Amino acid sequence: MDMASEPDRKLYLEDLNVGQRFTSRTHAVDAAQIIAFAREFDPQPFHLDPDAAEDSLFAGLVASGWHTAAITMRLLVESGLPLADGVIGASGELAWPKPTRPGDTLQVESEVLEIKPSQSRPDRGIVSVRILTRNQRNETVQSLTAKLVVFRRR
Amino acid sequence: MDMASEPDRKLYLEDLNVGQRFTSRTHAVDAAQIIAFAREFDPQPFHLDPDAAEDSLFAGLVASGWHTAAITMRLLVESGLPLADGVIGASGELAWPKPTRPGDTLQVESEVLEIKPSQSRPDRGIVSVRILTRNQRNETVQSLTAKLVVFRRR
Repeated sequence: MDMASEPDRKLYLEDLNVGQRFTSRTHAVDAAQIIAFAREFDPQPFHLDPDAAEDSLFAGLVASGWHTAAITMRLLVESGLPLADGVIGASGELAWPKPTRPGDTLQVESEVLEIKPSQSRPDRGIVSVRILTRNQRNETVQSLTAKLVVFRRR
Repeated sequence: MDMASEPDRKLYLEDLNVGQRFTSRTHAVDAAQIIAFAREFDPQPFHLDPDAAEDSLFAGLVASGWHTAAITMRLLVESGLPLADGVIGASGELAWPKPTRPGDTLQVESEVLEIKPSQSRPDRGIVSVRILTRNQRNETVQSLTAKLVVFRRR
C-alpha cells in the first residue's frame, strides 16, 4: 500500500508492516543550491564551479552526495515517511550510484524491510527501511538502507 | 603514520597504504548552526527547538545526523584526507552512536582499511577508509566506513 494518499496520518510502530511503501513530494535542485551547500560543507571544484567541473570525473557540476542525503531527509520528514515521533536514524548503508545535477527533480520512495521490536525497551523498535532517491529520469541517485528508531503509541 | 604533520602534501592512489591515518582540524558546533541546518534539511523539533527537544528522546537539542555527516565532510576536504583529486565517495556504512550537541567540538580521524586497484580502469582504485568523528570527550558521534574513488598520478 502506498501511503501517499493519506499524507496526514502519523504512524507508530504498530502501524507499520513489512512491504509498506511511502512516496514523498518532489524537490527541484538547481546550481545555486548545489554551490551554496558545497561552500558550507563540501568545497570541492566539481561541486562549486561549473567550468572546473567540466574537466572533472563528473563532466559537469554535481551535488555533494551529502547534499543529496540532506534533501532526501527533508523530503522524508515533510512528506515521505510519516512517523509520529519523527524520523530518527541510528545507522544506514548509503550509496550514490549517480550524481545529482542542476535541473534534477528528486523524489524519495521508501519501503519497510524489517520490523524488530526492542527486547530491552518495550516502547520502541528498530525498523529497517529502504529509501531510494530518484531523479526525473527514474535513475537512482541515492540508495539508503536505514535503521530507524520507531516508537509505539503511548 | 599520521599525516597531520604534512598538511600540504596531496596524495594519489600510489601514496596510500593500509593502516595510514589522518587527523583533521576541529570544528566547534553551536545551537545556531544546528538550527540553521535543521530548518533547511531536517525540520524536526529535537533539531529546531531547545525547549521541545528537552521532552524528546534526546533530552536536549541535537544536530541532525546529516549535519554531523556534512561537518565531517568539510573537515575531511579541508584538512582530514588530503587526496589530490578530491574526496569522492561511492558508498558507505554510517552510524551515529551518539548525537552532536551544542558546544561540541568535532574532529575526524581516518584510517585506510583496504586499497583495491580497479581492474577495468587502470587510472584509479577503490579505497576503503574508516572515518570516525569524535567530540571533545572523545566520544564517537559518527562512524563512517566509506569506499572512495582515488586516482593515480597522471
